[in-house]
Amino acid sequence: EDVQARADSRRIPINKVGIKDVYHPVRVKDRSSGEQHTIANFNMYVALPHNFKGTHMSRFVELLHGNEREISVESFRDILAQMTEKLNAQTGHIEMEFPFFVMKKAPVSGVESLMNYQASLIGELHNGVSELWLKVVVAATSLCPCSKDISKYGAHNQRSHITIKAKVDGHMWLEELIDIAESEASCEVYGILKRADEKHVTERAYENPKFVEDIVRDVAVRMNNEARVRAYVVEAENFESIHNHSAYALIENDKDEVVGL
Amino acid sequence: EDVQARADSRRIPINKVGIKDVYHPVRVKDRSSGEQHTIANFNMYVALPHNFKGTHMSRFVELLHGNEREISVESFRDILAQMTEKLNAQTGHIEMEFPFFVMKKAPVSGVESLMNYQASLIGELHNGVSELWLKVVVAATSLCPCSKDISKYGAHNQRSHITIKAKVDGHMWLEELIDIAESEASCEVYGILKRADEKHVTERAYENPKFVEDIVRDVAVRMNNEARVRAYVVEAENFESIHNHSAYALIENDKDEVVGL
Amino acid sequence: EDVQARADSRRIPINKVGIKDVYHPVRVKDRSSGEQHTIANFNMYVALPHNFKGTHMSRFVELLHGNEREISVESFRDILAQMTEKLNAQTGHIEMEFPFFVMKKAPVSGVESLMNYQASLIGELHNGVSELWLKVVVAATSLCPCSKDISKYGAHNQRSHITIKAKVDGHMWLEELIDIAESEASCEVYGILKRADEKHVTERAYENPKFVEDIVRDVAVRMNNEARVRAYVVEAENFESIHNHSAYALIENDKDEVVGL
Amino acid sequence: EDVQARADSRRIPINKVGIKDVYHPVRVKDRSSGEQHTIANFNMYVALPHNFKGTHMSRFVELLHGNEREISVESFRDILAQMTEKLNAQTGHIEMEFPFFVMKKAPVSGVESLMNYQASLIGELHNGVSELWLKVVVAATSLCPCSKDISKYGAHNQRSHITIKAKVDGHMWLEELIDIAESEASCEVYGILKRADEKHVTERAYENPKFVEDIVRDVAVRMNNEARVRAYVVEAENFESIHNHSAYALIENDKDEVVGL
Repeated sequence: EDVQARADSRRIPINKVGIKDVYHPVRVKDRSSGEQHTIANFNMYVALPHNFKGTHMSRFVELLHGNEREISVESFRDILAQMTEKLNAQTGHIEMEFPFFVMKKAPVSGVESLMNYQASLIGELHNGVSELWLKVVVAATSLCPCSKDISKYGAHNQRSHITIKAKVDGHMWLEELIDIAESEASCEVYGILKRADEKHVTERAYENPKFVEDIVRDVAVRMNNEARVRAYVVEAENFESIHNHSAYALIENDKDEVVGL
Repeated sequence: EDVQARADSRRIPINKVGIKDVYHPVRVKDRSSGEQHTIANFNMYVALPHNFKGTHMSRFVELLHGNEREISVESFRDILAQMTEKLNAQTGHIEMEFPFFVMKKAPVSGVESLMNYQASLIGELHNGVSELWLKVVVAATSLCPCSKDISKYGAHNQRSHITIKAKVDGHMWLEELIDIAESEASCEVYGILKRADEKHVTERAYENPKFVEDIVRDVAVRMNNEARVRAYVVEAENFESIHNHSAYALIENDKDEVVGL
Repeated sequence: EDVQARADSRRIPINKVGIKDVYHPVRVKDRSSGEQHTIANFNMYVALPHNFKGTHMSRFVELLHGNEREISVESFRDILAQMTEKLNAQTGHIEMEFPFFVMKKAPVSGVESLMNYQASLIGELHNGVSELWLKVVVAATSLCPCSKDISKYGAHNQRSHITIKAKVDGHMWLEELIDIAESEASCEVYGILKRADEKHVTERAYENPKFVEDIVRDVAVRMNNEARVRAYVVEAENFESIHNHSAYALIENDKDEVVGL
Repeated sequence: EDVQARADSRRIPINKVGIKDVYHPVRVKDRSSGEQHTIANFNMYVALPHNFKGTHMSRFVELLHGNEREISVESFRDILAQMTEKLNAQTGHIEMEFPFFVMKKAPVSGVESLMNYQASLIGELHNGVSELWLKVVVAATSLCPCSKDISKYGAHNQRSHITIKAKVDGHMWLEELIDIAESEASCEVYGILKRADEKHVTERAYENPKFVEDIVRDVAVRMNNEARVRAYVVEAENFESIHNHSAYALIENDKDEVVGL
């Protein structure tokens, strides 16, 4: 007898049930070089109606092993659809988080190096309608306008994490979100910088001071202007070089939300 | 000139701005022994209207240093109110996460030992109305009904984390949420177990098998029956002993949500 | 002028200086399928004599970008040699940690699934002599002999992490260390288990109870008998299902250490 | 029958066996205010001779519950001695890690705020002889000399973690190690800084540029001159504001090591 398929009398549906923290190799298409190999962490859930006792955990992992050793981002929506079908669910949810690399050119020397970003795809399918969120965490430099303003010389600056999570309609590259985050920081960061590059990024950041509030607003302006983005959450966290805590800001916006009915 | 107070022309309000990851000693009242000393991690945010360039980060930390070296949970609502006032904000948000200890008696020997739980208070004040959420992460034992059912002897079991986050109306002890979580697992866990206790918890878990789905449902039933809880999120994560990933389930419910207008 | 190359008068040599937490794509040869793509975290250090003010940080990252987008384990020793040469150092040290996957067959159904392991290569070159350490962290099941012994039925079991770090002389597959760890646990774990498999692993663990002390000793016996292993550290950590803390044991042995001169 | 006390025939002694990741409230004496309450994470191990099958895990946790709810640092050496006696061991090892707070005055305004540090006590008892290590992780500012040197204005700076681990002979305050770390960084960091303070720390760091190599050397000089310190490991890790990786350096020294026999 199948214990999971037994009837359940508590009359309580479950919003999400499935597996968490499964690692699996994936291939991700990128804008420049075709595709890259990386390792993703998966969370895969379905909604369970009140009258079923349990779901079938092994089927989630089977989906990841479907056809070939590595799964691709293109197959992400397919897996979401297959999952809800295979688990007889009306609602499915998949999160896939992975390190993502972009080859960048240093600003003066032009030396190339890989930069790593933490990226995610988040898909939700509900009654046949799916939505897809892209998420990137982008390391960058922030330099404090107040510190620059009041000091004879110098200005405190630090590594900052800019996080963009966007519900997209149509195709959008992860690199497009990364570009937006990097261009709205005080300066972007690189894997390799030669002396002339280091001079450039130091001066660039000094010429372009930004509070954490400025960063999230300037990114939000870009997201507002981007038609493919239907909703977003933008965060910036400065790992302050003069404190042992972070400065933090967040803006969220759902363009399709109906307000004031 | 105060850079932060400058006018801002981007016309974009900020949902949350403030400080993140500040550690501070606190005192927490507990049901049994009066109060305990612990260390909390704070996130403190306000909403910033579109026409202000920045907030005043140092004021957040000053609030934690208000009167005395340690702050208490009783002063949590006060700090929330002071924060919004001091920062001239309509909306404020504080998260305070801390290790919390309960002295437990082993089930047979009665030997006492401290158990640690990760607890949080989350407060939000919006236009003069505040809401308070309590959160606890409770380690417990889960034992798999399917494994027990199909095996000649034994059953796989593992450490499970049961998380309850509850919006409360009126006073509720953290220990009340902990009790609910522990009583709905296959068995609760302890700091010290003597031989007779180890026999007891082993047999108790074997007699009380539960899927991750069962745990969240049984906790949800309890939350539904508790009038002081107005909304909740219940999660269970089993760190499976037969896999290198987790089984996971989540139920959320807002009792005050108006449905189907 | 090159600030880093200035003379230093403090007369204090530095044991390790370099870069930490650099992520880079790599290819790793595996026993079964040729090679796999994964993402490694690198720490790269050299020793710095007392008379040099600083090292050249950008050269470390350049090494990772040497020839091609992905570096292979075969090139690991080469990179170690190149690093010490390029940095004019007598001593170099590289740690490369990455998720590593092995396709495993479930014990009864034969269903294949990938299992992930945290693996590391650690190389040290000193005055022209290099040594190479392999390290694997292997998730497995441990079942408590005492709990089984004293209980009417059942026995507490849990996920355990078995860590083997071995100085190897000659070639050794990561899979060989993984095999040793898995075969000395109460039972090994899998990505996908069907019902017949779940019955099998439940009963297998119950028939094969092991304390954390047993696991490290049984692995140590294997390491003692393996001529290619010249030194090792073996650890086991049980994430106890009846406690909120771990049981832990460690054995280390250097076969080439001269004792009692 | 006591399973753990059975004879073992594998003839392999175990270097460390015990419990890991136990949280317990503690009191720590500090230089200024008498004592502070905090939460410690404990690892407690003994060596196990080859002829014993297992140790008694519950006894470790019992030691922490000895007399009163909170244990003090003064009782740390006692617990180490009690542990080896209670477990019939020749060798014992305890690590106790905890957040530690120091009230600091801002450099210009004099405003007081608490700064948190990650501190540890590490004790080892072997054949009746004990040694004690203190460890602190101190957040500070580092400012790059090269960046300052080559740039028209500004200089990249960032949060840096300076870690000192010292084997002490006689009494030494954690605050003494913290003072050394903070005074050898480009600038120290604070919980609260008013405008005049922010100006001061910005300019101070700019006037005091240091490579990661400088920081570890300058701390090492201080440790060499401190007679109570018999051995040490000094580390500095800069969370570079112009990269997504760290710059890192380490110096270790055992003053009592006999060299060149």
